[in-house]
This record gives sequence, C-alpha cells and structure tokens, in this order.
Amino acid sequence: MNEKKIPFSIDALTCPLTIDASSFITLAHGGGGKFTHQLIEKLFQPVFNNPELETRHDGAVIDIPQAKLAFTTDSYVVNPLIFPGGNIGDLAINGTVNDLAMCGARPLYLSVAFILEEGLPIETLWTIIKSMKKSADQAGIKIVTGDTKVVDKGKGDGIFINTSGVGAIEHNFKIHPSSIERGDVVLLSGDIGRHGIAIMSAREGLGFESQIESDCAEVSSRVQNLLNAEIEVHCMRDLTRGGLATALIEIAQTSKLSIIINEVQIPIREDVKGACEILGLDPFYVANEGQFLVFVKAEYAKQALEIMQNDALGSLARIIGIVEEKPQETVVLKTRIGTSRILDMLSGEQLPRIC
Amino acid sequence: MNEKKIPFSIDALTCPLTIDASSFITLAHGGGGKFTHQLIEKLFQPVFNNPELETRHDGAVIDIPQAKLAFTTDSYVVNPLIFPGGNIGDLAINGTVNDLAMCGARPLYLSVAFILEEGLPIETLWTIIKSMKKSADQAGIKIVTGDTKVVDKGKGDGIFINTSGVGAIEHNFKIHPSSIERGDVVLLSGDIGRHGIAIMSAREGLGFESQIESDCAEVSSRVQNLLNAEIEVHCMRDLTRGGLATALIEIAQTSKLSIIINEVQIPIREDVKGACEILGLDPFYVANEGQFLVFVKAEYAKQALEIMQNDALGSLARIIGIVEEKPQETVVLKTRIGTSRILDMLSGEQLPRIC
Repeated sequence: MNEKKIPFSIDALTCPLTIDASSFITLAHGGGGKFTHQLIEKLFQPVFNNPELETRHDGAVIDIPQAKLAFTTDSYVVNPLIFPGGNIGDLAINGTVNDLAMCGARPLYLSVAFILEEGLPIETLWTIIKSMKKSADQAGIKIVTGDTKVVDKGKGDGIFINTSGVGAIEHNFKIHPSSIERGDVVLLSGDIGRHGIAIMSAREGLGFESQIESDCAEVSSRVQNLLNAEIEVHCMRDLTRGGLATALIEIAQTSKLSIIINEVQIPIREDVKGACEILGLDPFYVANEGQFLVFVKAEYAKQALEIMQNDALGSLARIIGIVEEKPQETVVLKTRIGTSRILDMLSGEQLPRIC
Repeated sequence: MNEKKIPFSIDALTCPLTIDASSFITLAHGGGGKFTHQLIEKLFQPVFNNPELETRHDGAVIDIPQAKLAFTTDSYVVNPLIFPGGNIGDLAINGTVNDLAMCGARPLYLSVAFILEEGLPIETLWTIIKSMKKSADQAGIKIVTGDTKVVDKGKGDGIFINTSGVGAIEHNFKIHPSSIERGDVVLLSGDIGRHGIAIMSAREGLGFESQIESDCAEVSSRVQNLLNAEIEVHCMRDLTRGGLATALIEIAQTSKLSIIINEVQIPIREDVKGACEILGLDPFYVANEGQFLVFVKAEYAKQALEIMQNDALGSLARIIGIVEEKPQETVVLKTRIGTSRILDMLSGEQLPRIC
C-alpha cells in the first residue's frame, strides 16, 4: 500500500466493486435499507464529496446570494450510456449547467437523481459518477442532494439521470426571446452536429474513418464572460434536441420576428458533413451538447464575438445572422448558392434518445 | 356548447386525446420537434398553467424571499401507476413537498420531469398530470419548469417522474438529527403502513375485504403550523421507503443517541395489521406517504401534539417515545407485552418500487 499523502484525485479512487459482495445493482439497492445506504456511502459520498451532501437528510439547505434565481430540470436517457467524447454523466451535468447559463444564471447547486436498472454493473455506475464529479467541478457547480431508485430488469435501460439546477441571476438583462429586437445580431458558439453524429455512430456501430466525438461541454464560463463584459445580451439558447434549426424556429416563433441566417457562416466539420450525407441527416437539425446561440444588440456584436472566440472551445464562433421584422415567425436560410430556404420544424425527431 | 363562464376547474378540462391524431405516446413526442411542442402546449400548459411556466424557456426565473433555501429531488417509479388512494402524480408532488417540509422549509417552486415509455396511453398521462396540479395547489407549490423524454417500448415502465423542489427556510432552528438532545420527545403524525399495503394489494390483486387506501398527502401545512407556533423542533423525518423503523434507526445513528419507542402508542389500523399478517410484513418497515416524525424539546411536546391533532389528517397523532443517551445509535421498542426489542435496519426491501 502506498501510504504517501497525495492531493485528492477522483481518478485515484477505486471502485468498491465488492459492494454488498455483488458487482451488479439489485432491487435492494433502491429499497431504502442497508444496501441503499451502502450505495450512498461507498459510491456517491466519496465522489460527490461536499459539506451539504454529507448531512444525510431529505434535502439540502443552501445559501443564496441573490433574490433572483434560475431553476431548471432535465432527465437524461441517452443511448448508449458511454459514447465517443462523453457519457450520460457528463451530459447530465453539462446539459443542466447549460440550461442555467441560457437563463443568464451563474450555476450554483445541482441535484442528481438516478433511476438504475436491476443488473447494471456497479463499475459502469462508478465510471459515470466520476465523470459527473469532474464536469461539476469544471462548471463550478455543487452537487448537494440526490436520490436513487432501482427498477426491475427490463423496466429501464441501464441508467436514467435527472439533474435539476439552481443558479444566481446577477444582472439586470431580461434574457428571453421576447427581448429580441429588429437589428439584433445572431452569434453561434462553434461547429454543429458533432453530438448527434457521435451518438448515432456509437449506437449503430458505424465505423467512420475519423472518430467523431461529442461536443459535450459546459458553456457557462463563456456566458459569464459575455455578461461580465456587460454585452447587451437579449436571448441565448443551447442547440440540443432538434439542433440549430429548431432553436432558431422556436425563438422566431416566440419573438414573432424573422431570423435571417447565412449558411456560409455556419461551421460544420467535413467529417460531420460526410457522416450526415451517409446517414441522410440534415446537420442543421442534429443535436449538439456544447453549442449555443446568442442574440445581442448590434453594437455589441464584434466584442461578443471576440469574447466567444477567446475561449478554448470557441475558436469557431461566428456571426451567423441578423433579426428582421418580416417574414414574421420565420427563419430564412440564405444558402451557399444564393437562394433562400425557409427552415421548418421537424415533425418527429431525427435521432431518438440523444440526450 | 355551454358558453356560461364558470370558475376554472381542472376537472372541466377534457383530455386532447386526438393529440397528433394518436392516443398513445410515440418516440416523436420526446424528439424536441412538433410533437413535443404539441404535448407541452395541449397537455402540460393547460394543466400546469402559471406565469413562470409559460415562458417556454430552458428554465424558470424565480424570486426568492429568503437567503436560506431547501433544495431536494426525488424520482418516482411506483408500480402500479394508479393505486387505491392516489397515483404516481400525487405521489411525485406530495413526496417532494414533504421532503421540503422535513427540512423545515415552506414549499415554493417545483420542477417536473417525465420519462415516458413509448405506447403510454395519453389518457393515463392526462389523469396523472391533473392529479399533480391538484396536489400542487393543495400544498401551495408552483410547478415552474419541466422536461419530457420518451424511451422505447420495453425500456421504461409507463411513466417515471422526477420532481425537484425549492422551499424557503423562514426560522432559525437547525432541523437535523444532530440537533436532537437527550430528553427530546418523539411525535408520530398518524397511523402507519397504509401506503405500502395499498400498493401491494393493487399490485398483487389481493382483495382485502375493506380496501386499504394509501395515506399519500402533503404534511407541509402541519409542519408550518408547528413552526409558526414556535415549537422548538429539533428534527423531522417522513416515513417513506423503509417505514417508521428505518427512519428511527437512521436518526439514532446520525444523532448517536438512543430512541425509546412505546409500541402501544403507535397507531396501526386493524385492516392494515391483518394485511401485514397475511403478507408476512412488519408494519414498522412498511412505507407511508403522509406520515412523519417530529422530535421536539420536551416542554413543547403537549402543545405540538395538540397542533398536530388539530389538523384534519392528524387525529391519530401520538407521542410515541423519548430520546435517551444509551444504548447509543440504537432504537429500542418497548413492546405491548412489556419486553424490549431492538429495531434493526432491513437488508433489502420489503416492497420494491413503492414510490
């Protein structure tokens, strides 16, 4: 045994595979008895280690610096659980952190609730919760309360995770589609389509030549940089289910304005384009997990772009469009060949269970 | 058509069964496209109707009256979805409201996240969300943000619901097992065992002569009455998974004290006793969804009991025990026949998926 004291590292924690002398989740782990307590004390506590969580209470007591908060929830049911560039754990943290960021809030506290399927290897759970802790630390959010349920084999799908988040709103902007005005400039944080393609290729076992990894990442620090620089932000939206096109259409409908988008400005990697062609997908509708739109007052556009491009993940940020009054509630795409195309909401979904 | 204006009533809403010309949930309802929007606009919005929810945003912006909040989460996977005395919807609201109450918080805001299984009848969902709205109104909590995911048939079990709650802590007590002192008096809110037996009999199709209904209810108003009367409350705990015994054992262990309980004081209905005997269950470990324990400083015990008994659901509230120093971390049951029995944590669970 190495007795030398080393700084705490999650990677240094070993999975207590012998939990209850079993390597798999059983219904008893969700029963509220001894096995549930072991799961919490051996797995969750050592990883999600923080003072609020240690109280073993029904909820967390949290201190709030602001009277105005953002509150959001998402359940994650992505299939497969582990995919190129991330896993359901990263996704569950970053997705909810990003929803808080889209409200213009600084992420503070997170709840985590697991629905585990009987028979899940405990090592899979361990891998996932370690990723969650890393992502939470990166985004500066604290996991303060949680819940674990177990369902019978065949009544779930490995792991479903719900995260709910609380964040502080520390500015006076009303960040909402209804704040958008004619003349506002639309910025995109980076290249689109990677998350959906990564999931699809992992699920279908497609061997693209270069492996396409999910863009799963927190965008909160970039949003904080924009707000701290007092950029007049009117609206933000992350580009998850339904992709760039659906986000734009939702915003056009809610704001009752027109959004004119320039196709040549929208970054898409060549390998993503190729994969979309093979799969018959339109990259505009493919999900992302680390990209977002920002609508700013025109005079702030250049400064906003610089701030976004200065981020390690933001080199491909672009100004992609402008807001006009007409045609109302419509997104118009100026294509590469000079024509115009109206973007319409998809009926179903291209890719089920991508988040 | 009746054109007369009547006060808004949830029961007056009819289920839009023709949503997307289908009566069943499809994967497309979770895809983030047109079908998802229809589900939100036709089902969720009319029922969970309130200003914060109508913003169609990624999260809700909420105003907070206090700097100190309680934050809690629970996922609900009860089987069957509808049972005598309630359904998964009531349970998902009351369960989280009660967790906030157990932190000594006044419930304020709730998030609701659904994981729906493909093929779920939309009418079932409609029944459940109407119950949720009624329970939320009863508890005075607002549903402000939500999420919907759909999983393939055979990868879920009808509906799973996560609710996360935010509440205001408006007093200066530290309500926690570590606040319990020797001499504290233990109060129980009412009779035990009904929820677990109701679920069990619904699931197994047991036809007990008198139908036993779940005790599913919010306990928050009783807690508020205790706190408003400035009863010195040291700890509270609701008696869900694992029942009365598990709650007592957890508290004894965390507080490192001894809890002495008097069996004759614990109300159990005769039909619940009978059902437990037939099923081979110990009612002390059977789950409840509307009962809780309160630990108060001895001088407040009588007044606390009166307050609890004055509630419509509290007539069976009793003083059931006292806190002593030894034997440490132990719950001792003084039995009806004068002997003592140590209550031990169960290894597994008696009833899987009761909440």
